Amino acid sequence: MATPNELLAQIADVGVDGKRGGYSRHVFDRAEHELRDWFTEQARARGMEVNTDANANLWAWWGEPGPDAVVTGSHLDSVPGGGALDGPLGVASSLAALDRLRAEGVRPRRPLAVTVFAEEEGGRFGVPCLGSRLLAGTIDPDRVRELRDPTGVGFAEAMRSAGLSPEGLGRDDEALSRIGRFVELHVEQGRGLVDRQRPVAVASSILAHGRWRFRFEGQGDHAGTTPMDDRRDPMLPASHLVLAARQAAAGVEGARATAGRMVPTPGGTNVVASTVDVWLDVRSPFEERTRELVLALSETARARAADEGCRVEITEESWADTVSFDAALRDNLTEVLDGAPALPTGAGHDAGVLAARTPSAMLFVRNPTGISHAPEEHAEPDDCAEGAVALARVLEHLTEGERS
Amino acid sequence: MATPNELLAQIADVGVDGKRGGYSRHVFDRAEHELRDWFTEQARARGMEVNTDANANLWAWWGEPGPDAVVTGSHLDSVPGGGALDGPLGVASSLAALDRLRAEGVRPRRPLAVTVFAEEEGGRFGVPCLGSRLLAGTIDPDRVRELRDPTGVGFAEAMRSAGLSPEGLGRDDEALSRIGRFVELHVEQGRGLVDRQRPVAVASSILAHGRWRFRFEGQGDHAGTTPMDDRRDPMLPASHLVLAARQAAAGVEGARATAGRMVPTPGGTNVVASTVDVWLDVRSPFEERTRELVLALSETARARAADEGCRVEITEESWADTVSFDAALRDNLTEVLDGAPALPTGAGHDAGVLAARTPSAMLFVRNPTGISHAPEEHAEPDDCAEGAVALARVLEHLTEGERS
Repeated sequence: MATPNELLAQIADVGVDGKRGGYSRHVFDRAEHELRDWFTEQARARGMEVNTDANANLWAWWGEPGPDAVVTGSHLDSVPGGGALDGPLGVASSLAALDRLRAEGVRPRRPLAVTVFAEEEGGRFGVPCLGSRLLAGTIDPDRVRELRDPTGVGFAEAMRSAGLSPEGLGRDDEALSRIGRFVELHVEQGRGLVDRQRPVAVASSILAHGRWRFRFEGQGDHAGTTPMDDRRDPMLPASHLVLAARQAAAGVEGARATAGRMVPTPGGTNVVASTVDVWLDVRSPFEERTRELVLALSETARARAADEGCRVEITEESWADTVSFDAALRDNLTEVLDGAPALPTGAGHDAGVLAARTPSAMLFVRNPTGISHAPEEHAEPDDCAEGAVALARVLEHLTEGERS
Repeated sequence: MATPNELLAQIADVGVDGKRGGYSRHVFDRAEHELRDWFTEQARARGMEVNTDANANLWAWWGEPGPDAVVTGSHLDSVPGGGALDGPLGVASSLAALDRLRAEGVRPRRPLAVTVFAEEEGGRFGVPCLGSRLLAGTIDPDRVRELRDPTGVGFAEAMRSAGLSPEGLGRDDEALSRIGRFVELHVEQGRGLVDRQRPVAVASSILAHGRWRFRFEGQGDHAGTTPMDDRRDPMLPASHLVLAARQAAAGVEGARATAGRMVPTPGGTNVVASTVDVWLDVRSPFEERTRELVLALSETARARAADEGCRVEITEESWADTVSFDAALRDNLTEVLDGAPALPTGAGHDAGVLAARTPSAMLFVRNPTGISHAPEEHAEPDDCAEGAVALARVLEHLTEGERS
């Protein structure tokens, strides 16, 4: 019976990012491929049948795949330079919970599956929760096939080079119809549990959020010879946008606006940039407020671009409505877990995508600093072990497991 | 007898940058290697002996290498996504001028050499004019061996992989002692000649200039879960610095300050950056004013970093004093070229580095838009041909060529 940390130790060397620190594990890259193989091996060693669906998600079944199944799982990809837990903790805890159920002689009366969703972070192709969105039919598969990574490789091409076919991408009613309940365990990405001195919580909601690319176009030129008043430098409006985002979000309760990715082209030290791409991540508890924030920032971007003689092109790369997790399921889990607190989160998750199609829930495991999407992300091994126990209890309850 | 444009056409396919546009030809990369081979072949076809000095610069000699030589040449590397002329026009014009002298039966009475300097742009290792600085002994070779490119490859390693030895890097008195006069032809990088309706000018001076890396360090975190007032986001002070640079430089006559390169780490859309590197290129006609500008911007950077709970580390990557080209040589060339105008420039050049060791001069060829360091960089073929003729006249004069 493995603990989550014992399982995570097996993949501690995979996708280490020597430059950024932490892990860079991106969909269809070598590290992610290795993690898929690891999961497949682990699931098969537990007698589970493993297959990859048409949207590159992995499914491991305990018993026959069937309707009204209880499905648990998370993802194995990371943000660039991310922590060890965001994603993998949920997958490892699913396997650990399964071990525990078996060790305790629990036999589920409903089918039980563990899933690994593809490209949850959008770390390679820019759109988060791609695997679950494709499965749920909330994103156009033609658009996904055309997505390109920062080096210009297309999604379809990358999928093929991983030995998978992009032909069948899109809403998968057969797979969807089998999911009766979905539960995702995840490391907490805030300090809600530290403040409450509890190791495990249940999720209540997810902020409405999206990603927008602002492409500022000016005139590339020589940094030494171009007089200051002759410039059309896209770095100027791009920098104004970064500052405006901070100010705008600080004025809206519960809102966040972040520019963590900026790429000037050509990117030479002695060169006035010709183009600058800035990605804005904007979130708030309400869809309308999130939209309003983006509209206001778009206006700022246009005005500042015009001041500099630049153009700006704004592209919505992803959008997710506010998610309120199924209240009955949530209350049910709170009860099973002896009054575990219910916490909202600002982070998007596959469970949030699936919530639109099937009753879904999440468990959070305490994070002592709240830091996530960074190498410093952490949870105590004891808390991780308690998380797996909690997940086992939830799965036993939802599958109406019999004890022999 | 080839024209500069005929020679440039031979290398038009080398190092094309499909992503940024223009050319990316960086020291010791495949494209630059191909250009070195092309130059060697062209010089040998003209009966010249070609060798690479200990600092990776190429030398092609017409006749025996000797003291009091007249040396001409430029560089073949580019900024990322640069134009076709910055560098290669000077090399091609040197070969074309040599062809013309021979066709006209001119026999130089002093040794004549054509050089190609390594890493003039600093496009790969960050420090411009590396080949000429090493040769002239104005940079520590130990520092150069330790320089790293953006992917982490060291200068010494890159040099070895190009088949050259980094052991002998540094001041080369033997090579220096041979240079009696140095003349570099270059495409103009401003609109001085357009305004004067002349195809060729002589350089008068180069702005004092340097490069500084500002590394802002904050706390990487999750873009969705970290409240705005809990952040230590290095993108904020980095953006303030970009805006402050514009404002500060606009207030000092003839000054320029540019941030054309910014790298947030880890660089994920849904990630608050942990570190942001911004490179600042600062120039002005006077050394002291350039230094003052950098000091003022450093103070701004420190204050804005402190506001955000971030640290900033400032590193001077390169520095070049104001260059006033040798007045006697300049006047001499002006006379040879029928009163060609003398123009200052904001761009650094190998001729500016060598000016500290030996009388040096530059010729500029008209650029109709002034745009440089960008794919749009241009000069009319007729102007390029006139440039080569002017260079031939200058070389004939300086070598005291005899006509048979």
